[in-house]
Amino acid sequence: MPNITYINGKYLNYEDSKIHVNDRGYHFGDAVYEVIVFNKNIFYDFDGHIQRLFKSLKSLEIKFSLSSSSLKIIINNLIRLNKAIIGSVYIQVSRGVAERNHSFHGLNIEPILTIILTKKSNIQNDLNGVKAITLNDNRWSRPDIKTTQLLPNVLAKTLANKNNAYESIFIDNEGYVTEGSSSNIWVLNKENQLITRNLDGKILSGITRNSISLFAKKNNITVVEKKFTQIELYNAKEVFLTSASSFIMPIVKIDDQNINQGLVGNISLELRKLYFDNFKHS
Amino acid sequence: MPNITYINGKYLNYEDSKIHVNDRGYHFGDAVYEVIVFNKNIFYDFDGHIQRLFKSLKSLEIKFSLSSSSLKIIINNLIRLNKAIIGSVYIQVSRGVAERNHSFHGLNIEPILTIILTKKSNIQNDLNGVKAITLNDNRWSRPDIKTTQLLPNVLAKTLANKNNAYESIFIDNEGYVTEGSSSNIWVLNKENQLITRNLDGKILSGITRNSISLFAKKNNITVVEKKFTQIELYNAKEVFLTSASSFIMPIVKIDDQNINQGLVGNISLELRKLYFDNFKHS
Repeated sequence: MPNITYINGKYLNYEDSKIHVNDRGYHFGDAVYEVIVFNKNIFYDFDGHIQRLFKSLKSLEIKFSLSSSSLKIIINNLIRLNKAIIGSVYIQVSRGVAERNHSFHGLNIEPILTIILTKKSNIQNDLNGVKAITLNDNRWSRPDIKTTQLLPNVLAKTLANKNNAYESIFIDNEGYVTEGSSSNIWVLNKENQLITRNLDGKILSGITRNSISLFAKKNNITVVEKKFTQIELYNAKEVFLTSASSFIMPIVKIDDQNINQGLVGNISLELRKLYFDNFKHS
Repeated sequence: MPNITYINGKYLNYEDSKIHVNDRGYHFGDAVYEVIVFNKNIFYDFDGHIQRLFKSLKSLEIKFSLSSSSLKIIINNLIRLNKAIIGSVYIQVSRGVAERNHSFHGLNIEPILTIILTKKSNIQNDLNGVKAITLNDNRWSRPDIKTTQLLPNVLAKTLANKNNAYESIFIDNEGYVTEGSSSNIWVLNKENQLITRNLDGKILSGITRNSISLFAKKNNITVVEKKFTQIELYNAKEVFLTSASSFIMPIVKIDDQNINQGLVGNISLELRKLYFDNFKHS
C-alpha cells in the first residue's frame, strides 16, 4: 500500500502528493535533502542528519524557518499515520516556487518541505558483501553540500547496476578515491589502519561516516582521514562503504579485483556491530 | 493573469499545475529541457530546439514517444488557450515518477512532459549592452547535454545579479572561456574574426549560436570556432552572448574591464538584425 507523505504542511495520500511545476527543485535542482532510517523507536543519527540539513540550507542561502524539533514531530506523525515500524524518511527542502529564472537574487519565496516515508520489512542486512566499479568523478565542485544535483550519481549507480554491481566509486583526476555515488568509502590497509578520505570539499561529510569514525577510535582501531589512491583501494585488506541506508556494507570485489579473496572482512563486521550496538543502548 | 500550462496530457490552470513528488526530475535533476521564443506567428529556431531536446533525451536514455509534430500541436494549443501573442515556452521532460532510487536500470516508467508558457509584451530588445562577471567553471562534466543540473548556473547567475551584472561567464581551469551561465559567448578580435568556443564537450551546442554562425558566414563575417582565453575576452573589440531568450545581447563590461569603451559594437548589432530578418522572411 502506498504511503502517506508530507507536502508543505499537509499529510497526503500518495496519489495526491504533488508539488507545483514551478518548484525550483524541479527546474534547477535548487534543493537539499537527507535520508534517515528508523527501526522501531530508534532513529539512526537523527540529530546529525538534521544538523547537516540546516548546514546545506545555509550553504545555498535557503531561508528555512522550521526547527529541528518541529521536523521531528512531523516525522513521528508520518510514522504513526503510516503505521510504520521499520523504514526510512526522505526529507527534501527546495528553495520554493517561482516563475522560472536562474537567479534567486532578491527573490522572496517560502521553501517547500516534502517528506516521503518508505516502509521496510527489515533494515539492510545482506552481509555477503557487494561488488563495486570505479569511474571518473565528473560531478560539480560542491559534492560537500547535499543537494539534488545528482544526475552524475544517477548515471554512475545505473552503470554499476548494469554491471551487476551495487555501487560506483568515483576516482578524481589524480587517481584518488573521492566517494561512492551514494556512500563514503573506507579501506583497511596492510598496517590495519582504517582510511577514509578527509573532508577536503571533494566528498560529503557522511553522518554514518562520522559515527563509524568515532566508534572505531573508541574501540582502538586506528582511523586515518586522508586521500588514498585507486591502487590502495584494490590492494586493501578490507573495503567497505557507509551510508544512511546501507550502514556499513562490505565490498568484496572492485572492478575485476577481489578484495580479501572475495570474503567479508572481520573489521567491517565488527564496525557494523559497534554501530548497531551504539544505537541499541542509547 | 497566471497562464495555463501543459502537464503530461492535460491543459491546467496555474494553481493546478502540479507534478508528483516522486518525479525523478525533482529528486535527481533527471530531466532535460528547452526554451523556445515565439513572436506572433514566428517560432525562433523551433526545429533546432526540438531536435536538441530529442538528442538530450537520447543521451540520458529517456524513452520519449511524442513526435516533433505532436509537440508543435501542444505548443500551439497552449498559445491559443493563453491568447498569447509574444512569449516563450519552457519544455521539460523528466524520466518519470518512481520510488526514489538512484539507478534507473530496468526501470520501466513513462517520461513526464511539462510545458510552461510565459507571455511577454515584446521580445528582448534592450540594446544598451549588459555587464558580465567571470568565475570558475565548476559544473559537472556534461554541460553539452541540456539537463536540469543547473545549481552551479543558478549560483553563478545570482552572483552576477548581486554584482549588478546580467550574466556570469565560466572560465575553465586552464583560463579558457567555456560559456555563460545561460548563454554562449562570442568575441570579435582585432583581426575582425568572430570567435566562439568549439563544441569540445565543455559547452552546450547553442541553437541561437548555430544560427548566428550560419548567418555571419553568409554575410562574409569570418567565424572561427576555437577556444579563447579570459585575456582575449577582456581585449576583444566586441563581446556578445547568444541564447534563446536574449538572442544576441552585447556585453560592454566584463568584471572591471570596459569592452569597446563600454559601447555596443556594430557587428553585434548587425548580427542581431540578420537574426531577426532571417525569421521575418522565413
